[in-house]
Amino acid sequence: MKFTIVGSGRHLPERVVLSTEVDQHFNLEPGETQRRTGIAKRHFYDEGTSKLAAKAVTAALNDAQLTYQDLDLLICASGTFEQPIPCTASLIAEHFLAEDHPIPCFDVNATCLSFISACEIAQSFLTTGRYSTILIVSAEAGDDALDPEEFESSALIGNASAAFIFSTAKQPKAQYDVEVLGARFMTYPEYAHAAEIKAGGSADFIPENEQDRYFHMDGFELIKAMRRKLPDFLSDLLAEAQVEIKAIDFVVPHQASGPGMKIAGRLAKFSDKQLINIIEETGNTIAASIPFTFEYLLKREEEFKEKIVLLLGTGAGMSIGGQLLRISRR
Amino acid sequence: MKFTIVGSGRHLPERVVLSTEVDQHFNLEPGETQRRTGIAKRHFYDEGTSKLAAKAVTAALNDAQLTYQDLDLLICASGTFEQPIPCTASLIAEHFLAEDHPIPCFDVNATCLSFISACEIAQSFLTTGRYSTILIVSAEAGDDALDPEEFESSALIGNASAAFIFSTAKQPKAQYDVEVLGARFMTYPEYAHAAEIKAGGSADFIPENEQDRYFHMDGFELIKAMRRKLPDFLSDLLAEAQVEIKAIDFVVPHQASGPGMKIAGRLAKFSDKQLINIIEETGNTIAASIPFTFEYLLKREEEFKEKIVLLLGTGAGMSIGGQLLRISRR
Repeated sequence: MKFTIVGSGRHLPERVVLSTEVDQHFNLEPGETQRRTGIAKRHFYDEGTSKLAAKAVTAALNDAQLTYQDLDLLICASGTFEQPIPCTASLIAEHFLAEDHPIPCFDVNATCLSFISACEIAQSFLTTGRYSTILIVSAEAGDDALDPEEFESSALIGNASAAFIFSTAKQPKAQYDVEVLGARFMTYPEYAHAAEIKAGGSADFIPENEQDRYFHMDGFELIKAMRRKLPDFLSDLLAEAQVEIKAIDFVVPHQASGPGMKIAGRLAKFSDKQLINIIEETGNTIAASIPFTFEYLLKREEEFKEKIVLLLGTGAGMSIGGQLLRISRR
Repeated sequence: MKFTIVGSGRHLPERVVLSTEVDQHFNLEPGETQRRTGIAKRHFYDEGTSKLAAKAVTAALNDAQLTYQDLDLLICASGTFEQPIPCTASLIAEHFLAEDHPIPCFDVNATCLSFISACEIAQSFLTTGRYSTILIVSAEAGDDALDPEEFESSALIGNASAAFIFSTAKQPKAQYDVEVLGARFMTYPEYAHAAEIKAGGSADFIPENEQDRYFHMDGFELIKAMRRKLPDFLSDLLAEAQVEIKAIDFVVPHQASGPGMKIAGRLAKFSDKQLINIIEETGNTIAASIPFTFEYLLKREEEFKEKIVLLLGTGAGMSIGGQLLRISRR
């Protein structure tokens, strides 16, 4: 399958939380949190997911030299939501009401891999012609769900947003031609509870224990799952695409945690030059992490000819998702 | 686009709540709630969305004469969720862990229209060959979110689940060949707050006022929105498909409310014979409503040759979605 990237944009909110503040909170030596997580700072946003998303949408439209009227589908691909009802995509569209341009809006949720699932959907929509100019936006403003007394929860997660506008080869404003060399997504539900928010849905709507409304993860279990599942997943993806690891120019991983990315990198035998690691500056921004890092890479490289890029991540569920793309700037 | 229905299944939980109980709670004359809503009874489920979903999945697999191992994608298309993290699709897959068959799982959320969005996605996936045997399941067990002191909230919503297995024409076990004559989906965010749960997401994570965790709808505003938007939406869909209203054999509407369906039916000039109305027995089952009613229709009609079926609904967002399908039993 082939498609184009017309434009992209990202946004980091202004409010900074330093990892040294986490050190203080947990009575750790200064620098200990960064040593354990690879994170120097994160950014927090207090005005809701949709407003944060809208900032990335506007940046992507400007980058694409398109207007909101050029879009014919809006997919919100986030791991958290602004309200339980309606879907966040509708609330994002509300920020563009003045444009008077109704388009279809829905959410796709595969937790940290929502952007990967939305890419698969967009690629098929563009191939069949169902939609021709698709906006995917991932935004996370979910810091309220962090348990301030749990180190893993409160030290890792940051807020950010990123948006991409995908179209077909016919779009004259397209900046990049993309060919999907391989796409693979797999869910291993035996690890469904290794990262979760237990309460707030039908399982336990208003819990007795407010702790159950917070995000909890079992980092040890997740790393065990990755060790068991990632190598085969990746070799299946590469075999399908007939691409060797050393042929990959850039790996855009989900910025889960410093140690997590290191272990994944070693398991997969990626070199440090291949791996794009920006977690120091952002923390783990849940579903915004992959598109944010991808957009960072596209803007960083002046020349982008025939580059092979692997988007790859793990997410709660537990899922692994990957997209192997050949990308050329027009 | 063409695809096939291999099997389908639905489930209504055992626990019944009669509309006469609502009469009593609000000190109304016996029968008044049914008169106002068109609903005689609803069914409630207390064991979570994923378990309710799994019952419909098992029914659909049996109907299809397939096993879980035959599936290559699981989409959960519900308006509510079991846990905020991970996605409900992963939790549904957890009920089939013994099958030892990992497949990709993600959620699609367009509130009451989630099934329509998931159908669009599945149709494009089948056409491009990205996936070949796709399970879509919608399940709602969200009665905890109903405000017991608000008539509209507490009188309308019921629990149910429904599942469909879609494939390509090549699938020998397919029961129905389907051609998509037209598909349209549109979101009008000026009505984004006419039906909502305000709190529980990033907008207001743990609200001071517990009322804000409940579902609230402005029925008057929603009916105004439908009057303004539905006629044009429908005529655009029919024009695209080159189908006249009287050529439609069956309309499967979202079972929103008795009066809502009546007004929609009049606006659209559907006859009572065309409109499938089962709300009396189920209430409004949110996203399960359309697939549940569709599955009811398929099972009701012995002969199903060259029938034109319109799936149509409105959902919070506010969105309108429609799929015009030509369906033939093999």
